[in-house]
Amino acid sequence: MAGWCVGLASFLFEYDTPRIVLIRSRKVGLMNRAVQLLILAYVIGCYHTHFAEVEMESPKFKQWVFVWEKGYQETDSVVSSVTTKAKGVTVTNTSTLGFRVWDVADYVIPAQEENSLFVMTNMIITKNQSQGSCPELPDKTTICNSDANCVAGSSGTHSSGIATGRCVPFNETVKTCEVAAWCPVENDTHVPEPAFLKAAENFTLLVKNNIWYPKFNFSKRNILPNITTTYLKSCIYDAVTDPFCPIFRLGKIVESAGHSFQDMAIEGGIMGIQIKWNCNLDRTSSLCLPRYSFRRLDTRDVDHNVSPGYNFRFAKYYSDPTGAEHRTLIKAYGIRFDIIVFGKAGKFDIIPTMINIGSGLALLGVATVLCDIIVLYCMKKRNYYREKKYKYVEDYEQGLGSEMDQ
Amino acid sequence: MAGWCVGLASFLFEYDTPRIVLIRSRKVGLMNRAVQLLILAYVIGCYHTHFAEVEMESPKFKQWVFVWEKGYQETDSVVSSVTTKAKGVTVTNTSTLGFRVWDVADYVIPAQEENSLFVMTNMIITKNQSQGSCPELPDKTTICNSDANCVAGSSGTHSSGIATGRCVPFNETVKTCEVAAWCPVENDTHVPEPAFLKAAENFTLLVKNNIWYPKFNFSKRNILPNITTTYLKSCIYDAVTDPFCPIFRLGKIVESAGHSFQDMAIEGGIMGIQIKWNCNLDRTSSLCLPRYSFRRLDTRDVDHNVSPGYNFRFAKYYSDPTGAEHRTLIKAYGIRFDIIVFGKAGKFDIIPTMINIGSGLALLGVATVLCDIIVLYCMKKRNYYREKKYKYVEDYEQGLGSEMDQ
Amino acid sequence: MAGWCVGLASFLFEYDTPRIVLIRSRKVGLMNRAVQLLILAYVIGCYHTHFAEVEMESPKFKQWVFVWEKGYQETDSVVSSVTTKAKGVTVTNTSTLGFRVWDVADYVIPAQEENSLFVMTNMIITKNQSQGSCPELPDKTTICNSDANCVAGSSGTHSSGIATGRCVPFNETVKTCEVAAWCPVENDTHVPEPAFLKAAENFTLLVKNNIWYPKFNFSKRNILPNITTTYLKSCIYDAVTDPFCPIFRLGKIVESAGHSFQDMAIEGGIMGIQIKWNCNLDRTSSLCLPRYSFRRLDTRDVDHNVSPGYNFRFAKYYSDPTGAEHRTLIKAYGIRFDIIVFGKAGKFDIIPTMINIGSGLALLGVATVLCDIIVLYCMKKRNYYREKKYKYVEDYEQGLGSEMDQ
Repeated sequence: MAGWCVGLASFLFEYDTPRIVLIRSRKVGLMNRAVQLLILAYVIGCYHTHFAEVEMESPKFKQWVFVWEKGYQETDSVVSSVTTKAKGVTVTNTSTLGFRVWDVADYVIPAQEENSLFVMTNMIITKNQSQGSCPELPDKTTICNSDANCVAGSSGTHSSGIATGRCVPFNETVKTCEVAAWCPVENDTHVPEPAFLKAAENFTLLVKNNIWYPKFNFSKRNILPNITTTYLKSCIYDAVTDPFCPIFRLGKIVESAGHSFQDMAIEGGIMGIQIKWNCNLDRTSSLCLPRYSFRRLDTRDVDHNVSPGYNFRFAKYYSDPTGAEHRTLIKAYGIRFDIIVFGKAGKFDIIPTMINIGSGLALLGVATVLCDIIVLYCMKKRNYYREKKYKYVEDYEQGLGSEMDQ
Repeated sequence: MAGWCVGLASFLFEYDTPRIVLIRSRKVGLMNRAVQLLILAYVIGCYHTHFAEVEMESPKFKQWVFVWEKGYQETDSVVSSVTTKAKGVTVTNTSTLGFRVWDVADYVIPAQEENSLFVMTNMIITKNQSQGSCPELPDKTTICNSDANCVAGSSGTHSSGIATGRCVPFNETVKTCEVAAWCPVENDTHVPEPAFLKAAENFTLLVKNNIWYPKFNFSKRNILPNITTTYLKSCIYDAVTDPFCPIFRLGKIVESAGHSFQDMAIEGGIMGIQIKWNCNLDRTSSLCLPRYSFRRLDTRDVDHNVSPGYNFRFAKYYSDPTGAEHRTLIKAYGIRFDIIVFGKAGKFDIIPTMINIGSGLALLGVATVLCDIIVLYCMKKRNYYREKKYKYVEDYEQGLGSEMDQ
Repeated sequence: MAGWCVGLASFLFEYDTPRIVLIRSRKVGLMNRAVQLLILAYVIGCYHTHFAEVEMESPKFKQWVFVWEKGYQETDSVVSSVTTKAKGVTVTNTSTLGFRVWDVADYVIPAQEENSLFVMTNMIITKNQSQGSCPELPDKTTICNSDANCVAGSSGTHSSGIATGRCVPFNETVKTCEVAAWCPVENDTHVPEPAFLKAAENFTLLVKNNIWYPKFNFSKRNILPNITTTYLKSCIYDAVTDPFCPIFRLGKIVESAGHSFQDMAIEGGIMGIQIKWNCNLDRTSSLCLPRYSFRRLDTRDVDHNVSPGYNFRFAKYYSDPTGAEHRTLIKAYGIRFDIIVFGKAGKFDIIPTMINIGSGLALLGVATVLCDIIVLYCMKKRNYYREKKYKYVEDYEQGLGSEMDQ
């Protein structure tokens, strides 16, 4: 009990600090500071560039800032909600369809999606299809001379129906296997060029984006508070002049990604509208701004053009007075605009800071270790220093190597 | 070789530990412990609150727990899959449409989506549109006196078609430019008030959510194992009484977010149904529960009402016996329910723990540094202590400042 | 001024290093190294397994590698874009529909989605519905004997319309409440078995996935550069033989998840096609490969079968010559394929490495602490060692316990 009490007393009332050899030497002293300096560099670097970043945005700086954020901030990933609205009308005049006006309800399919919008730019239309039997499109597998060439009930990956087993004339010259299908079968061998709705280049797209950082309960919209309604009614996004206008010209989006709209319109494709929300919530929230960038997502290298671009089929169903159903099949080529929202928010937090400072201090310890090595092993006066630093204690049970260091 | 062997021997069989000055002083001793205590505080804090949290959920505690999880756990973000199903029927009786019943197939557009569901609450319907020419809606740009006012082929952002260049009477009083368009053009100047399908307030929405944490291969559903089917058939979500019932009354969702359903129904909007899955997998998985919250995502400040609320246009296409196509254009206003699933799972992991302990220890070192400064620079007996702690070693090549400290 | 100068001189030109007791003792020396070894173990572990992983992929190794990545790499989460395309045709022959061919435009609803694709496998079709009044389906709430049993204007969760208040014969034997609804009302009491479009098992699904790691600006597709077009035209995914073929047989997907396609086809369900992109960008990008896995997301335990599987209703609208509107209601059962893309990329980064090394060093300090405790408190020669290590300094103001340790 008494012993315990004494123990506590000594624990509380004693202070132990290491004994130090203080070597007065220009060489060693400077070397020591130099090493410490190098180790300190990265931490200091962060601070400086942190404040530098506010003005300039060069990638190098951003990366440094990230260092800062990573080290001393709690981070959270963005939670986002997007709505889109396309605007624009155009007319076409073709032999098959005659003079026709196209508006949003015609070329946006489906009418609404969550994070993306599809604008039809080209199409292969097959009118008045009805259930029945008709000759398949001619290709190496379907061309036939006699019924013997056609296996009833068979169906390939690309066939439009189920073979009936008969071989029937496709036109004057060619005979192909007959199929049970929606007839007449679609003929998509030739994609219209130029694109059917090439005027889509001038359509506009309004993107409304609402983000939220759950951990910090911070939310913001891409329609910034300082933007006036009149501005919104007239503006068109431009990286330089209107970087915060949420209305995009379709043609401009594709060009910004380094592609030609008219080329893309023919076979379709996917465009990514990337909205980056990197926010440092230690700073005023007005500095937390959306940054738009555009990327084509269906990278088409010529040697991988299995179903290149982007297209899908849909049908409008009708029933004639007799009640029989028929449909208009449309193979829609077009550009799907995916709105991709990403980003991180950072806010100062004590814990990661503590961890960093802690390990930073430990790193500083390295300086002493390095210098000791140099002083005690490399310098010519090493033995002199060594005996000042070390005190040798023999363990009398064992004599081994007891002489060597003196 | 012998030297190498000797070197190894000394490396293995020698133990070096710093020499310590042990100062017996109440003042210094206590001060030292105090500083160490403060630094230890945050780590200890975490442990305590970690276990405290299991019972209570106050934000302060949650934040502390987060500290714990951040420090000693591996985390992973949720991977989720959502399905929704709406239920409800209503009737309307209007001059244009007469008596009409509306069921799910009528008001949910499109029929199925991945993470969201759109319920039409209001609409502007334009029946029997067909391709042709008709006067544009009158507004400052379209009103005209003579053909001179109308530029053929022109088309503004808000026009319903392409101007033909003729100026025709819109009604007895007003003349507007004629456009090639789907005629008659839609007149959306007045949104029906109250909302056309105001009864949607009582429709119900079943949300099925299946989450997965890939890193821990842990998966769970929002329909909890202890919920009975009979309960599910009857229950309606309520934050207090039924916090785990996955069936929501549309009206309640909007109210929980602090808005009025009937107001929102008129121009539409976006509601976020947020499902938070924060799981501490060190604890029993039955404590890993979904937390529902509701937020309106189309924050509408009066000064930014460019296309306020949420609406889109779609059309139903018909062909009359002659084969001519006509359509019914519907401008659908409604509420889109986005199901936003987020959360983090944490599980104890040795690596982050190691890192934390390591830097924690380093921080403790700070205590000694601080105390040394006080003892050796501030206390009146500083010189006495200093000579005990330090041993001065002159570097005889240089005499500079060799006297000063004695 | 002079003092300040002297202070700087001593700061720059003095080097302080702790004084060390060097104890020559096999026991203590070896013990010390042993403890240090254990602490070093985990770091070394990481390095080794890091390189081991390149060859083998056992979960244990993966986990270790993760340790490495966590410790020394900056990580980023994947940003992804997905397109899907289904192929396949089938025929059905039923009394209600007669002989009918089904192609993509018929069974994929909606025609296009962002990250998922729905394939209809079963259906309940109700043709020629029109607005009117008809008897409700008989169930415990709708069966009636007289109008007294039917409350006009009432509508339950599962009713197809609004009760008119009349009690009318449903068939010869049963009378039910009449409802204003789309008539005749759908009868979904019996789901067709086997599934109507059971042939969907052989349909194929092409998944095109483009991923991007914003932080490292690294992007890649799931159609790998070394894959030839001819291969893509013919291949079908197989975990063993064709692990990188992006074309999947629907039946195979379900089987891989351990379920029967024909069972699932009847009531529908959700299948997750998981694409994992875990990339170590310190290695060549050709090692950054997609890994496919399949999981059923609508876990159906028999006791929770509230709306089991997956289905939704949609309608095709027609207008007969008189202009009256009627519709064909389809309750579509089917499998929704959600493409879930996840993963992390890691790249060496100086900051986390620094932090790790720092705290690693701090941990090594523990070795000295432990050994000191043993040497100074447990060993029989402790007092001998202690007086070598410690130098006691009395604070003359207080004599307390000054004798005890000598």
